[in-house]
Amino acid sequence: MKNLLIAQSGGPTVAINATLAGIITGACVSGGIDKVYGALNGIQGVLNDNFVNLNELILDTQCVDLLCQTPAAALGSCRFKLSNPEEDDSQYKRIVEVLQKHNIGYFIYIGGNDSMDTVDKLSEYLVSHNVGDIKVVGAPKTIDNDLAETDHCPGFGSAAKYIATTFAELERDCSVYDIPAVTIVEVMGRNAGWLTASSALARLNGGRGPSLIYLCEKAFDIDRFVEDVKEEIKKHPDVIVAISEGIKDENGRYISEVNQSGATDMFGHSYIAGAAKVLEQVVRERIGCKVRSIEMNLMQRCAAHLASATDLSESKLLGMHAFQCAMEGMTGVMASVQRINDNPYEIIFRRVRVKDVANKEKTVPLDWITPDGHDVTPEMMQYLKPLIKGEVNTKYKNGIPEHIVIFKNGIDNKIDN
Amino acid sequence: MKNLLIAQSGGPTVAINATLAGIITGACVSGGIDKVYGALNGIQGVLNDNFVNLNELILDTQCVDLLCQTPAAALGSCRFKLSNPEEDDSQYKRIVEVLQKHNIGYFIYIGGNDSMDTVDKLSEYLVSHNVGDIKVVGAPKTIDNDLAETDHCPGFGSAAKYIATTFAELERDCSVYDIPAVTIVEVMGRNAGWLTASSALARLNGGRGPSLIYLCEKAFDIDRFVEDVKEEIKKHPDVIVAISEGIKDENGRYISEVNQSGATDMFGHSYIAGAAKVLEQVVRERIGCKVRSIEMNLMQRCAAHLASATDLSESKLLGMHAFQCAMEGMTGVMASVQRINDNPYEIIFRRVRVKDVANKEKTVPLDWITPDGHDVTPEMMQYLKPLIKGEVNTKYKNGIPEHIVIFKNGIDNKIDN
Repeated sequence: MKNLLIAQSGGPTVAINATLAGIITGACVSGGIDKVYGALNGIQGVLNDNFVNLNELILDTQCVDLLCQTPAAALGSCRFKLSNPEEDDSQYKRIVEVLQKHNIGYFIYIGGNDSMDTVDKLSEYLVSHNVGDIKVVGAPKTIDNDLAETDHCPGFGSAAKYIATTFAELERDCSVYDIPAVTIVEVMGRNAGWLTASSALARLNGGRGPSLIYLCEKAFDIDRFVEDVKEEIKKHPDVIVAISEGIKDENGRYISEVNQSGATDMFGHSYIAGAAKVLEQVVRERIGCKVRSIEMNLMQRCAAHLASATDLSESKLLGMHAFQCAMEGMTGVMASVQRINDNPYEIIFRRVRVKDVANKEKTVPLDWITPDGHDVTPEMMQYLKPLIKGEVNTKYKNGIPEHIVIFKNGIDNKIDN
Repeated sequence: MKNLLIAQSGGPTVAINATLAGIITGACVSGGIDKVYGALNGIQGVLNDNFVNLNELILDTQCVDLLCQTPAAALGSCRFKLSNPEEDDSQYKRIVEVLQKHNIGYFIYIGGNDSMDTVDKLSEYLVSHNVGDIKVVGAPKTIDNDLAETDHCPGFGSAAKYIATTFAELERDCSVYDIPAVTIVEVMGRNAGWLTASSALARLNGGRGPSLIYLCEKAFDIDRFVEDVKEEIKKHPDVIVAISEGIKDENGRYISEVNQSGATDMFGHSYIAGAAKVLEQVVRERIGCKVRSIEMNLMQRCAAHLASATDLSESKLLGMHAFQCAMEGMTGVMASVQRINDNPYEIIFRRVRVKDVANKEKTVPLDWITPDGHDVTPEMMQYLKPLIKGEVNTKYKNGIPEHIVIFKNGIDNKIDN
C-alpha cells in the first residue's frame, strides 16, 4: 500500500486543521493507506524531507476533535512558489525523490491560490514525466474567500462569524456615550472585500450594523467618505465604519499609502499605518469629533473559539472529498463546494481542475455593492448568511480553549525512515 | 413602597449588565420595591430626569439572561464628575429634586473609581442635608481591575479570559512560519498592568505564552527591550510580546509619546500611535526582522461571547449584594469581593466604605513582576487563574450572539410620571 502525504500552506485560518482532520479521517476509514505523513512548512517540508508521522501524533478521535478546534496550520506553513519547470526542474526532481523515498502515492496540499499553483505545476510535471503513481490533489482554504471555482472557501465562514459577532459587540460598546464618536474598523482583504462585507451580518438580530461599509472593489474617495460620515453623525452619535484594508483611490493606489507618503518619525523613517489609522486622522482633522480606529488584525483569522460550525464541518468534509479524489486516481484537481440552494442552504462537493483556480482571484461582484458605494445588497446578505451558522462546542481547560500542538518551530522533527 | 434607581458609568465591560441583572433580580425577589428605574447615561440621566422603567423592559427571566450576555452598559454610560458641593451644590439640589420626584429610596451606581466618587459625594450630601430616606450604594466594575478594597472587579475576569484565549490563539497563528517574526500585542491599562499580566494565562494548557511581558508598573527601557527580543529570537523564530498601553520610561513619560514626538504626516499634523506601534517601528529599525503590532482594542472589553462564567456569576451576585446593602439602610458603601482561599477558590461578599475606594488606584505589586522585569510571578498566576474559569452558555441566533437593547442613543426615552 502507498503512503499519504499532507501539507498546509499560505496564511493561517481557523479551518485548515479541520480539513487536515478530514483527510486523516478519510485515510483511516478507507483502509487503502499505509502511513499518513505530514510535511512541515508546506512544500518546503517536502524539499527538505521534513516529515512527521501523523499516525503517531493523531492517535484517537479526541486528538482529531482537538485538531479541529486548533487554529492556524498544525503542520506549519510557507509562502513558496515553485519555479517554472521548463526553466529549472531541480526542485521537481528533489520533490519526486523525496516522495518516492517515502513511498508516497497521494499528496494533498491545503492552501490558497498560490498553493493551487504548486498543485498545478507539480501534477503536470508528474504526468509529463510519467510518475503516474503519485497523485496530487488540492484542498482549498483562505479567509479571503477569493478562490475561483468554489462557492466559498474553508476558513472564510469562521472569519465572517468572528467579524459579524465583533461588530455586534462593538456596536454595544460604542453605543454607551451620547457624544458623537466615529469608530473605523479595518478588516482584512487587499483585493477582495468578502470579509468586510461580513460586517453587515451584525444586523441579523436587529442591530444597526456598520453605518458605512467600504469594500476594496470600489474606488474610495476621501471627500465622499467625509461627507458620508457627516451625514451619519446627524442621525446618531455612534457611527461605526467598516473598511477593507485594501481600499484604493480611483487610480488604484492604496489609501493607506497615498495619504501617508510624507509621514515620518523623528528619525526621518516612514510610518507604516493601515487604512483605518489614516482615515482616523482624516476624521480628526476634517470633522473634529471623537474618533478611533480598530484593526481586526490576526484575531479575525485565528479566533477558533468562535468558529462557524458550518465552516468547520464543510472544511472537514472537503478534506475527505479531496482524499476521495486522490484515491480515485485523480490528479491536478481541487475539492470544491457548489451551492445548490440558498434557503434552505444546500451544497454538494465536487472536484474542479486546479488550473482553473491557480493564480486567479474571485472578488466581490460590483452589483453586490449598493449604488451609493457604502453598503452591500440583499444578494450579498443571502450569500453570506448560511456560512456563519452554528456554533462549535469548543473544549476548554483551565478557562482557555484546548489546542493540539504537533510540532514546534526551531526543533528538529524529522522522522527516520 | 419606595422605588429603586440604577445607573451605569465609566468604560464598558462585559459584566456591567450582569450586575444590573443582579440588582433587578434582587429587587424582584425582595418584594420591598415598587418600581425599578434606570437612569440613562449615568448620573447625567439623573440630572436630566431621563429614566426608563426597567419593569417594562426586562419582562422575564429570558430578558435577564439576555441582559447578562449583552456587553457594555445597557443603560448607557457617562464620564462625569460631580462638583464639590461646598463650592457649588446646584447639581446636588437637582439630583435630590429628581430622585424625590420619582420617589426613589435607593440609588445604586455601577462603575469604577470615578463613579465611586459620585456615590461618596452624593451619599455624604444626602446625609448632611437630612435626606435620610435615599440610600446610595456603589457596585464596582472595571476591566482594569484597579479598584481598592475588593479582591478583583467585575468585568476583569472576562477581559482576562479574552486576553488569555487570544494570546493562545495568536501563538498558534504566529507559529506557522519558520522565519523570525516579532508580534507586539498592546493590552489596555494606563496605570495598572493586571490585564497585560493575564496574557500569561495563555500558558495554562502548556502553551509558551508571551515570550516577554511588560507591565506599566515598571519603568520601560527601550534598549533593554531590544536586547530582550534579540535573546528570544535566538531561542525560537516566533516571538510574542505583551505590553501595557501605559508603559512609561524611567521619568514616567509614556513610551508612546516620547518616541513619536516628531512624527508628523504630510500636512504637518502629529500622528498618534500606541505603544505597540512605536515598538514595532523600533524592532524594524534596530533588529530588522519581520514585525507586526496588534492592539486588543475595544474587543478586550466587549467580547461577551467569551465571558468568564466566574466573572458573570460574581457580577450578578455583587449586584444582589449591593441591593441588599441598600435595603439594609446602608449608604455610602460599595459591594465588594473578598477572597478567602485560592485553591479551592473561595470568596465572600462584603460592603466597604466607598470613601476608601473613590479616586484610588490598585496597581500590580512590584514583587509580582519577575526581577528581570519581563514576566509575572507564580503569585500573579495563582491570583489570576480562578477568575477566568468557566464558560457561559451564550445564546446565538442566526450565527451571532443575541443581545438586548433597552434604549437607543439619539432617541427620547423619557418616561412620563
